[in-house]
Amino acid sequence: MRFLTAGESHGPQLTAIVEGVPAGLTLTADDINVELKRRQGGYGRGRRMQIERDQVQILSGVRHGLTTGAPITFVVENKDWRNWQDVMGAAPITEEEAGKVRRQVTRPRPGHADLNGAVKYGHRDMRNVLERSSARETTVRVACGALAKVLLRACDIEVAGHVLEIGGVQAQAVHYDGLADLQARAETSAVRCLDVSASAKMMAAIDEAKQAGDSLGGIVETVVSGVPIGLGSHVHYDRKLDGKIAGAVMSINAFKGVEIGLGFAAARLPGSEVHDEIIWDAENGYMRKTNRLGGFEGGMTTGMPLVVRGVMKPIPTLYKPLQSVDIETKAPFAASVERSDACAVPAASVVCENVVAWEVACALLDMFGHDQLSIIQAAVKRHRQAAKEF
Amino acid sequence: MRFLTAGESHGPQLTAIVEGVPAGLTLTADDINVELKRRQGGYGRGRRMQIERDQVQILSGVRHGLTTGAPITFVVENKDWRNWQDVMGAAPITEEEAGKVRRQVTRPRPGHADLNGAVKYGHRDMRNVLERSSARETTVRVACGALAKVLLRACDIEVAGHVLEIGGVQAQAVHYDGLADLQARAETSAVRCLDVSASAKMMAAIDEAKQAGDSLGGIVETVVSGVPIGLGSHVHYDRKLDGKIAGAVMSINAFKGVEIGLGFAAARLPGSEVHDEIIWDAENGYMRKTNRLGGFEGGMTTGMPLVVRGVMKPIPTLYKPLQSVDIETKAPFAASVERSDACAVPAASVVCENVVAWEVACALLDMFGHDQLSIIQAAVKRHRQAAKEF
Amino acid sequence: MRFLTAGESHGPQLTAIVEGVPAGLTLTADDINVELKRRQGGYGRGRRMQIERDQVQILSGVRHGLTTGAPITFVVENKDWRNWQDVMGAAPITEEEAGKVRRQVTRPRPGHADLNGAVKYGHRDMRNVLERSSARETTVRVACGALAKVLLRACDIEVAGHVLEIGGVQAQAVHYDGLADLQARAETSAVRCLDVSASAKMMAAIDEAKQAGDSLGGIVETVVSGVPIGLGSHVHYDRKLDGKIAGAVMSINAFKGVEIGLGFAAARLPGSEVHDEIIWDAENGYMRKTNRLGGFEGGMTTGMPLVVRGVMKPIPTLYKPLQSVDIETKAPFAASVERSDACAVPAASVVCENVVAWEVACALLDMFGHDQLSIIQAAVKRHRQAAKEF
Amino acid sequence: MRFLTAGESHGPQLTAIVEGVPAGLTLTADDINVELKRRQGGYGRGRRMQIERDQVQILSGVRHGLTTGAPITFVVENKDWRNWQDVMGAAPITEEEAGKVRRQVTRPRPGHADLNGAVKYGHRDMRNVLERSSARETTVRVACGALAKVLLRACDIEVAGHVLEIGGVQAQAVHYDGLADLQARAETSAVRCLDVSASAKMMAAIDEAKQAGDSLGGIVETVVSGVPIGLGSHVHYDRKLDGKIAGAVMSINAFKGVEIGLGFAAARLPGSEVHDEIIWDAENGYMRKTNRLGGFEGGMTTGMPLVVRGVMKPIPTLYKPLQSVDIETKAPFAASVERSDACAVPAASVVCENVVAWEVACALLDMFGHDQLSIIQAAVKRHRQAAKEF
Repeated sequence: MRFLTAGESHGPQLTAIVEGVPAGLTLTADDINVELKRRQGGYGRGRRMQIERDQVQILSGVRHGLTTGAPITFVVENKDWRNWQDVMGAAPITEEEAGKVRRQVTRPRPGHADLNGAVKYGHRDMRNVLERSSARETTVRVACGALAKVLLRACDIEVAGHVLEIGGVQAQAVHYDGLADLQARAETSAVRCLDVSASAKMMAAIDEAKQAGDSLGGIVETVVSGVPIGLGSHVHYDRKLDGKIAGAVMSINAFKGVEIGLGFAAARLPGSEVHDEIIWDAENGYMRKTNRLGGFEGGMTTGMPLVVRGVMKPIPTLYKPLQSVDIETKAPFAASVERSDACAVPAASVVCENVVAWEVACALLDMFGHDQLSIIQAAVKRHRQAAKEF
Repeated sequence: MRFLTAGESHGPQLTAIVEGVPAGLTLTADDINVELKRRQGGYGRGRRMQIERDQVQILSGVRHGLTTGAPITFVVENKDWRNWQDVMGAAPITEEEAGKVRRQVTRPRPGHADLNGAVKYGHRDMRNVLERSSARETTVRVACGALAKVLLRACDIEVAGHVLEIGGVQAQAVHYDGLADLQARAETSAVRCLDVSASAKMMAAIDEAKQAGDSLGGIVETVVSGVPIGLGSHVHYDRKLDGKIAGAVMSINAFKGVEIGLGFAAARLPGSEVHDEIIWDAENGYMRKTNRLGGFEGGMTTGMPLVVRGVMKPIPTLYKPLQSVDIETKAPFAASVERSDACAVPAASVVCENVVAWEVACALLDMFGHDQLSIIQAAVKRHRQAAKEF
Repeated sequence: MRFLTAGESHGPQLTAIVEGVPAGLTLTADDINVELKRRQGGYGRGRRMQIERDQVQILSGVRHGLTTGAPITFVVENKDWRNWQDVMGAAPITEEEAGKVRRQVTRPRPGHADLNGAVKYGHRDMRNVLERSSARETTVRVACGALAKVLLRACDIEVAGHVLEIGGVQAQAVHYDGLADLQARAETSAVRCLDVSASAKMMAAIDEAKQAGDSLGGIVETVVSGVPIGLGSHVHYDRKLDGKIAGAVMSINAFKGVEIGLGFAAARLPGSEVHDEIIWDAENGYMRKTNRLGGFEGGMTTGMPLVVRGVMKPIPTLYKPLQSVDIETKAPFAASVERSDACAVPAASVVCENVVAWEVACALLDMFGHDQLSIIQAAVKRHRQAAKEF
Repeated sequence: MRFLTAGESHGPQLTAIVEGVPAGLTLTADDINVELKRRQGGYGRGRRMQIERDQVQILSGVRHGLTTGAPITFVVENKDWRNWQDVMGAAPITEEEAGKVRRQVTRPRPGHADLNGAVKYGHRDMRNVLERSSARETTVRVACGALAKVLLRACDIEVAGHVLEIGGVQAQAVHYDGLADLQARAETSAVRCLDVSASAKMMAAIDEAKQAGDSLGGIVETVVSGVPIGLGSHVHYDRKLDGKIAGAVMSINAFKGVEIGLGFAAARLPGSEVHDEIIWDAENGYMRKTNRLGGFEGGMTTGMPLVVRGVMKPIPTLYKPLQSVDIETKAPFAASVERSDACAVPAASVVCENVVAWEVACALLDMFGHDQLSIIQAAVKRHRQAAKEF
């Protein structure tokens, strides 16, 4: 599977085309919308999230609720496009009109793509950069991930996610019974955190940051269960699935790190406490006593749950001003904004789930075929049996 | 640029073909060998590293010391191939011979690709997996990175690396004057650590682990300076250079995490302490007061040094046994080895440098062309000037 | 540049996302619409072409008439979607509704994707195949090509096309003065043929075929002038531009062959009459006395006009019945249709132009960069000068 | 599967790395050598072909005659490397040595990559171009195709080829019973032509051309039988298998055209005589009465044999001089050579077979998986059964 996304934050719509989806998968707009809604939630979001309730339209590739194998078009309209038409319209404008265009941006915001993008693409109006670099794009990226989740679920693979840390407040490890339980618990927390007491502290920290005109980042975790042994491959570095997942997670807006299993903690432990012993019984086949490596060995899945964590930096759009320079006047100024999210980590948790789901689904199709769902399901089943009997 | 690598740990040779290298670059075997040698060093390596001194042969794409634009072939011979010919030969063998093949592996080692790869590819002799999944492959991957370094250097971009942590021993931040100084200091430490006192403690920790039949992991850092503004792109997620680097670093054998700039620490700081204020003066153009984001905003380079860290887990081949299961008998056994490295973090630091160099070089060519070095150099120069005057 | 297209023949719309377009290119819906209109014309088309006048909407990546570097979304609505909503809707339907779905297709048409696609994707209703395999998709492929033409024109590269043969009626070679003249003459012919007398005969042949319930194919030619020396590369087979163009042309619906320069005639001539002698003068630099090789040597452009021909088979949807088999009953039947185009070669000529333009534009950006139009233009200019002085 | 090739015509060796080959395939050097030998034969070749007998070494990815899933390295040594070491060596040379380098090329040969490549890559010594653009590269490309053939054969898919036309001498259609018969007959002809009488005329034409210091091109045909229905896909233009094959064939050195089934003849026939009627019987499932479309509909295979033709221009290296210009002096000269092949069409026929085999094998793995041969074989078998029962 592959996809391209398009669309600006204040353009008419966001669009994604997904190519390579197997035929015969049950897929509805609701399957996508449920993830779009989850992405829009979370304590600490600004007002825009409340006004807009993203809804996907499926404009190709699905007929009567089933995928056909043809490319799928997802469209999510921007509700306030009407107010932005003259600022963002595609049609040429006269020089007179050009002189009046509102909302030109000549002041790059620290922490954003503004200045780099302007230098690269030669834009004196940095709106031409920020409209595309906005995290608004993750809306349709989540739509693609939601499709991947549906596909994985059809093969008994589940994806869930939660928040581990916000602004230095760390969640305690909470026991959960399978991914349905994990997901259910995360849904009850406004910050998607399993630890009830930490949830409260996180919300307090967000309130405090907001009041200070500041913002908070955090750490999210995605877990994938039911993964067949052997997705990815050790034979060439660019086919290792952990590498692909790391690349995809790091490419989420504002993410600055990614780790799998023990991750960075592996630097502090001896080898004897890092690896997972292999056991076997006739009923289940091969298993690991532990899952410190987060479901990966040699770039391939081990059959244990995938455990991927990513860190999101605090949103750079602050009420508290950061120094910058106007590119026209070269005069320094204090960059600040009128309204913004104080924390987008819960939403980022949802984005991360969907981004990981996409990579796992691609690896699944790569291994088991990609024409017809029923053929893929049968191949997965045969593989699971063969792995057990191996 | 793109490359493929091939070769097994005990096969006749490792091979890489690099396609898309500009013409006119001065390149010698020595340029490559210097990195191969750096990769083979480091306190804590086992005996094999001492016996073998890897030497590259350049068998195409370079004529009289200059690249021609044609694909480049790197070959590194395995010195002990003679002893492995019957075990690893490509030629078919008779059934009788098959019965006598030495060194069959039916016992998967925890932490290695052995079991996953065997299930995926249907191998009852897991030597067919481990010979390729071995970190021996990084030899030619480093060769490709060494080429990238030469190319970057020709455009005044420098790459260096060092070790930050081994087995929980953390280096203190050490001031260095530019990358030449950083590199020079790292070269003087047997563990490639700038902090002299931490170096000693790391070596002691390695000795201790070795004695205990255990192994240690650690954290390495790669720094790239002189990077033009705007490598990578914000316009599509899969063109973000930080994402590509993350994917490449995670795909290094035994790596379990990667972070850029503040990385995971960004989860503990408010936004006002995470972003880098933008300043300007006529001589230098735009700069950042700090470099907390490690040289990236919006997936593009900011002109500040790239700062990438990766974590390597302890080598899984332990004298101290880990439990596993024989795939033929299904009997449990204690997996242990006769000899192995206790710590490969210093070598991994070199691998990481070269892997990052490759990604940066690809992004550079993507932006500035890839036919002739002199044209690329001129384009980079023009861009630097334009960025200053932007 | 890369693009994905989506959409069914009777779905709500066709969509394309183009990624990798340089910033700063002047682009309007009219630039695209002019090609869409050309594609819809031509003697021999059925009624649908007359009802529908395709119009593109540009929904991202262009602001105030200039590209921004962000992905561009093209949408072309299908005018009669209202009448097809229940047949083609994406929403799930009840079993009762499923029983009533009109226009199910269980009878594969010879010469179409119907049967192969049904077997591959497991569709019992072959509408799920034919809606996507329809040449209606070329509408947005032409939109992408129209964008490529605009880009090429900004670098003084022109693309034009004409029809050489329809149903065995061959055009005589007609002299034209440059591509503007070629294009102008082709536009005056209802079959896009330069030879006025052959034009008349082609129309007569189409009328005759129509009356007989039959259809006609033909040969089209695309010419590209002003191409810099050295697009493509000889260093690896998959970087040869003639190969890429051949692949792209063959992938146009109903195309069965492609040739460059003398093409298949080169099998009948001695080497001394096939190659182009190289000449030089101070004003123009290197040139060829002739252009038998159609602008390519070694997979690279020579600076002479590119000359690419493709053959389109007759449209397989005939009034005259072809035998086929119902996949449900296995009963043979005579496949025929109520209305169809008798000849789509003139339209195919426009599609071919745009498909070739896309490949040339990609090769151009590959060689000269792809961030800013003005930088690309300057690089092309420098290259032209260097080639002259070489 | 993917591969990269490297190596110059007079360098030490040609190398290919093939990545993505399934495990469990029986593969020996002999399997490859048989195709290398076929490529070197043919009436009309010069002396080099007689001296050198290419032999492949398999240096990775195969163990004891079976593929392991790891990348495969093919090496073919150039026998006369010893005589070319100082001309072609990779090591830097002193200025004094540089002054003495023999065999510098400043005179571009018409019909070759020489001039275009020199301008593109900035080479004043065009040896840096011609060494790589030489058809010598097809040696390892054939090696990759030979591997593909072995894989296809393991799935009951056969590939064969023959020569249809040389220098205007056309073969009459000859009946053959299956591909084994086709291949056997072609092997008995020194020009790989099934028509015994045309064979003799072709040889006479080659003799005549040779005497006249000229060269001849021709048309070759590749046929693939046993192809499952549905390789390739109609859903996106770049997944159509006929397009991929056309691109691959056109990229063979000196090829100027490619056609499938009726090819260009389809321009002269009415639709009723171009398409293949669909029939069905219980024993065989769906079949076509004819195979005018050469095994493709909608970019997918129909189950009928693939029929692909390519045209090779006469070799441009002629005894009979063509005019060219020295790039240093700008003086015109008459380009001629001392020895060369008069006709390489029979060899090109073998190259074409192998190039087509590669594309078909890739499409096969794309559809049926690529990890283990036995799993692929079972999937192909299930698909064939399902197609029959469809």
